[in-house]
Amino acid sequence: MYKRLIVCIFVLGFIFSSHAEDGSQLWLRFHSVHPQKQLFSGVTGTTATTAMTELQHDWMEMTGKPLYQTNKIENNSLVIGTIQSRNIRSFGLSKELIQLGDEGYVIKTIQQMNKKITVIASSTDKGLLYGVFHLLRLIQTDHLSQNLNISEKPSYQVRVLNHWDNLDRTVERGYAGRSIWRWDELPGKISLRYKAYARANASIGINGTVLNNVNAAPEILSDTNLQKVKVIAGELRPYNIKVYLAINFSSPAKLGGLSTSDPMNAQVRDWWKDKTNEIYRMIPDFGGFLVKANSEGLPGPQDYGRTHADGTNMLADALKSHGGIVMWRAFVYAPTGDDRAKLAYEEFVLLDGQFRDNVIIQVKNGPIDFQPREPFSPLFGGLKKTKLMPEFQITQEYLGQGNHLVFLSPMWKECLDADTYCNGAGSTIAKITDGTLYGNKISAIAGVANIGEDPNWCGHHFAQANWYAFGRLAWNNSLISKQIAQEWIKMTFCSSDSFVEPITDMMLRSREAAVDYMMPLGLHHLFAWEHHYGPQPWCYIQGARPDWLPSYYHKADSVGLGFDRSTSGSNAVSQYYSPLREVYNDLSTCPENLVLWFHHVPWDYRMKNGFTMWDELCYKYDSGLKEVRDFQKIWDKMEKYVDTQRFKGVQSKLRIQAHDAVWWKDACLLYFQTFSKRPIPYDIERPVYELGDLKKIKLNMKSHN
Amino acid sequence: MYKRLIVCIFVLGFIFSSHAEDGSQLWLRFHSVHPQKQLFSGVTGTTATTAMTELQHDWMEMTGKPLYQTNKIENNSLVIGTIQSRNIRSFGLSKELIQLGDEGYVIKTIQQMNKKITVIASSTDKGLLYGVFHLLRLIQTDHLSQNLNISEKPSYQVRVLNHWDNLDRTVERGYAGRSIWRWDELPGKISLRYKAYARANASIGINGTVLNNVNAAPEILSDTNLQKVKVIAGELRPYNIKVYLAINFSSPAKLGGLSTSDPMNAQVRDWWKDKTNEIYRMIPDFGGFLVKANSEGLPGPQDYGRTHADGTNMLADALKSHGGIVMWRAFVYAPTGDDRAKLAYEEFVLLDGQFRDNVIIQVKNGPIDFQPREPFSPLFGGLKKTKLMPEFQITQEYLGQGNHLVFLSPMWKECLDADTYCNGAGSTIAKITDGTLYGNKISAIAGVANIGEDPNWCGHHFAQANWYAFGRLAWNNSLISKQIAQEWIKMTFCSSDSFVEPITDMMLRSREAAVDYMMPLGLHHLFAWEHHYGPQPWCYIQGARPDWLPSYYHKADSVGLGFDRSTSGSNAVSQYYSPLREVYNDLSTCPENLVLWFHHVPWDYRMKNGFTMWDELCYKYDSGLKEVRDFQKIWDKMEKYVDTQRFKGVQSKLRIQAHDAVWWKDACLLYFQTFSKRPIPYDIERPVYELGDLKKIKLNMKSHN
Repeated sequence: MYKRLIVCIFVLGFIFSSHAEDGSQLWLRFHSVHPQKQLFSGVTGTTATTAMTELQHDWMEMTGKPLYQTNKIENNSLVIGTIQSRNIRSFGLSKELIQLGDEGYVIKTIQQMNKKITVIASSTDKGLLYGVFHLLRLIQTDHLSQNLNISEKPSYQVRVLNHWDNLDRTVERGYAGRSIWRWDELPGKISLRYKAYARANASIGINGTVLNNVNAAPEILSDTNLQKVKVIAGELRPYNIKVYLAINFSSPAKLGGLSTSDPMNAQVRDWWKDKTNEIYRMIPDFGGFLVKANSEGLPGPQDYGRTHADGTNMLADALKSHGGIVMWRAFVYAPTGDDRAKLAYEEFVLLDGQFRDNVIIQVKNGPIDFQPREPFSPLFGGLKKTKLMPEFQITQEYLGQGNHLVFLSPMWKECLDADTYCNGAGSTIAKITDGTLYGNKISAIAGVANIGEDPNWCGHHFAQANWYAFGRLAWNNSLISKQIAQEWIKMTFCSSDSFVEPITDMMLRSREAAVDYMMPLGLHHLFAWEHHYGPQPWCYIQGARPDWLPSYYHKADSVGLGFDRSTSGSNAVSQYYSPLREVYNDLSTCPENLVLWFHHVPWDYRMKNGFTMWDELCYKYDSGLKEVRDFQKIWDKMEKYVDTQRFKGVQSKLRIQAHDAVWWKDACLLYFQTFSKRPIPYDIERPVYELGDLKKIKLNMKSHN
Repeated sequence: MYKRLIVCIFVLGFIFSSHAEDGSQLWLRFHSVHPQKQLFSGVTGTTATTAMTELQHDWMEMTGKPLYQTNKIENNSLVIGTIQSRNIRSFGLSKELIQLGDEGYVIKTIQQMNKKITVIASSTDKGLLYGVFHLLRLIQTDHLSQNLNISEKPSYQVRVLNHWDNLDRTVERGYAGRSIWRWDELPGKISLRYKAYARANASIGINGTVLNNVNAAPEILSDTNLQKVKVIAGELRPYNIKVYLAINFSSPAKLGGLSTSDPMNAQVRDWWKDKTNEIYRMIPDFGGFLVKANSEGLPGPQDYGRTHADGTNMLADALKSHGGIVMWRAFVYAPTGDDRAKLAYEEFVLLDGQFRDNVIIQVKNGPIDFQPREPFSPLFGGLKKTKLMPEFQITQEYLGQGNHLVFLSPMWKECLDADTYCNGAGSTIAKITDGTLYGNKISAIAGVANIGEDPNWCGHHFAQANWYAFGRLAWNNSLISKQIAQEWIKMTFCSSDSFVEPITDMMLRSREAAVDYMMPLGLHHLFAWEHHYGPQPWCYIQGARPDWLPSYYHKADSVGLGFDRSTSGSNAVSQYYSPLREVYNDLSTCPENLVLWFHHVPWDYRMKNGFTMWDELCYKYDSGLKEVRDFQKIWDKMEKYVDTQRFKGVQSKLRIQAHDAVWWKDACLLYFQTFSKRPIPYDIERPVYELGDLKKIKLNMKSHN
């Protein structure tokens, strides 16, 4: 009896631990999906594909039974195949499939005689993989029907993660542990996480990854390291993930031993050609290079009197014959200049039209640096003859890092949906970048990954939603945030309306809450020095670049607050098209959520609601704090819907967030109050900190991993 | 011109600094009193008294002009004198004055022919001093009229502060800096603060002070130290403050070199007689001894198999011929026993009637130890043939120490007004202790001082109100807290209704707020080990006395919370008279603010408002926090009524208090939740701390000075 009990406990323990609720399974939690209805009677298709393997594996997880393979199509059969397959051709889908490209797919319910069958079809196996994940998502979110008529193709051809991972396995701006790329163990030992990573990305449509930090070490291109890259590429390939590398522009000199890295130097050009050829010999489907050059101290073509075009074209030429691309970052700002927000535009607009056709310029959503809210970068629309790709930051460098629940989809949508007016009304960033507007041959989108070796991949359980959302938007930039949130919630936690509705609501409010308790009304870059976690609007570092100090941006004085970028100030507004430039330029028409971005606003300026700017600022901070407190309430009520481990994990993070929101509010209001000399409106919860004490806070967060 | 400017600045600076708003002037801020009406045309009386000196000094401060002394009584004259004075006798006040005793006084408007005059009269100069301070208070609070008919005599004969000050100038449970008694400088150097201290106490009617800690060093009675005591006594005497000393019961052995301190030993008795005689030779008006014996490790008569009566009577005999008294503390609790709350009663009730008539037993308001809320000590009423004096704690050991704004008058009134039923209904503690009920020959009241060398005396500006309130209640135990608060506010800050009303409101709510965010519903002693500042309901110290640990008191378990002191528990209720013992014994009739003091209450017990006990506990903690946040709002709105220095000082303390209230709430609720296993009601602001983190907090507060 005792023995049996012990065995029983052991078995239960094993089952439990194999499904430990540590978040490691992300949104692919098939073991907890229990389809209410009979799904398919069997499946027809090629077994030797990732798509079929995935389907059968997940089916087993969901139902506990195998999904039998059959050649005979029966009622309620699932048929999977490419246009090479006779079955698929017989359904008359070929024309549509060719239009959808090699990653597109259809999922359709087809009535054939007395049989109703479900078909997933694509031009290639790549599309089938995405089709299968789509079907699985329908099951997971209880949206599978017998009336399907889905056609999908991705908004962007290149949907790529940027890992800011270093070779020593630290992760710049990473908050989820060390890098998942185990350079120290490669190429001999292959972590199981590589395949899990590929699968997770494939499930949301991501098809590329830049393995290493844009602040790139030349050594990434050493023969030794390329052997390791090759192994990773091999692990990711079955899931249609291409590998890209960030390169250091000085590699010819630093790694190759040349005397220069001048892009006009023949030896340098040859070095890159040789290196590229070497890479493609090892990794035939290698994606290309990502380059941060002449930015924040990194080397670049300007070191040799050359332009960004000279530099990127050299690399493009080397990659061209292999089908590779160069993603060249526009994140450049010289330490001189009156307004950092203008600099990238000023530099790149002169080069418009000079880039090769396999070059794409990677532009951060805003003109500064992933702030909680920025206007869109005027490079979007500003460059008309150059391909541009948005760079979003999934990792929450400026949005509470590993501790704050902030769903970023609304922030990215704000950028994608922004109308630049570059070709008249409707010239949104989505349309500029996905090729709709100019018919680009290449389109791409990048997200700076929030992934690390933490069991749940992203540190915060809800940070997974940002990885998910990035993938979904990269696939379909017209998706709305609410749908993305609901999909993720249902797949990751629970499908009950009583859970999905409040949690969706919380997620959709979370970004605006963060803006409010950190930097409302267009404030930006009030962050603490270097680690960027907490508030430090007073920050002064002897000898620091002025444009790395908050006072450069907030310009608080006895008159008011904010950076005058109007025509009477830095004139950054001129980088936008009409009517935006006029709208932004005029304090009375400038959107209030950007008013301190574009104007130095007097403390007593009357906002549209009648409050003074100072009072409104106070109410915004207070509102952000109240939102977080409300998120805590919302979450705490959900205890019965969530496993204890993840419930407590999120609860604990929300406590930190509420705590931090008070810190932000007190720090910013008490500091700005030393300029405004006005009372915090008396109906607002009072500060609990002393400014002097807050100024003493020095967090040791140099490395977060 | 420049020189003149510099001189001007210097003079202004001097004036400013001489009235620096550091709180050092307490409620005696005559420089800021600007009487609206003409006061008196002159004064008649003996100049060589403290009363007259005080009057003339303060008059000058208020009006900038001297109050001229005149022998001719004119219209609008002020006449001051004792019954020795012919003027006073002529008003026919002698009989009334004799009834008022040597500290009582009258202040009357007398119509004489065409003249309206104001008379302050007393049997002795002591009464005149109190009368003058009363008149000044009327002016300060704008209550002076031409229709005065005031007769006052004190509720208690002995109105004494207990300084827990050590000879090394640390102060036990002191939060206002080191001791004001500069033993290191005495007797040669006399601090100006001694006289300022005497004056402040006289202004509120305090007439005695125990200079040293009840945990007394024998050395206080050394010849050297007595020389110093003599000097202090000399400084205090003009303000009618008698000096008392706390003595160590082992002094004959430890200081005198005897082999024992047995109170039945003839040598010991002689030693005390000799020592007492020595003291009285130096200080003829010496007040007597305060004794903490056989308590918390201190020596006492029980060390020799004697009783508290044996010990105190020995000292009483030594003091008797000099008119001195013994104040003997009933704060005793053996480490054994099932319920610390019962122990003092059990020990002292057996000795009732055995004490000399110059002995008075000093009893803390509650049975445990100055907790935010306790029921009254059953010794009040329990001893019928023994004089008892209340001991209140002005210093806020258990009420936020130097940081929390808690006005204690309502707490003391709760004790004084408590009906013990010892002689039927109406047998309040006020009546028992002030002599009304039994006609005691000696009556006394003690307050543990909150005074230190901080510029503002008490650390927190509002802590001054507790010193003030103690003095006022010692003088008149029927005063209501609201009146005391309003007097103090007007004298200390500002008389504007817009200030006085909200601040009075805040002060009157503050004690209940502290109870709510610290220990509602009768919880007690959840404080952190030793320093007693923050919450530590989980506190466990290896080898500690169980009755020094919070779990001894809260008894949290899976069933419920609270100490069962009913007849089915420790039966502490039996120490109270009917009907209280029945009321307390029955969970359904026990006052809810003491329900966890007297009962182990199930978590799901329904309170009168229908909430479960657990929910009610949560709401109470939350309510306490909300109150503090509201105090912050109230105070912040008062900025224009208060000088910057004190405004910011109080503002800063309130921030700490709000911060601490969150700490208390989270610590207690998260800890008790580990037993209740119930959710915190979802409409309450959620915790922002983790229990595990709170448990790690270790404050280094061994010495607060």
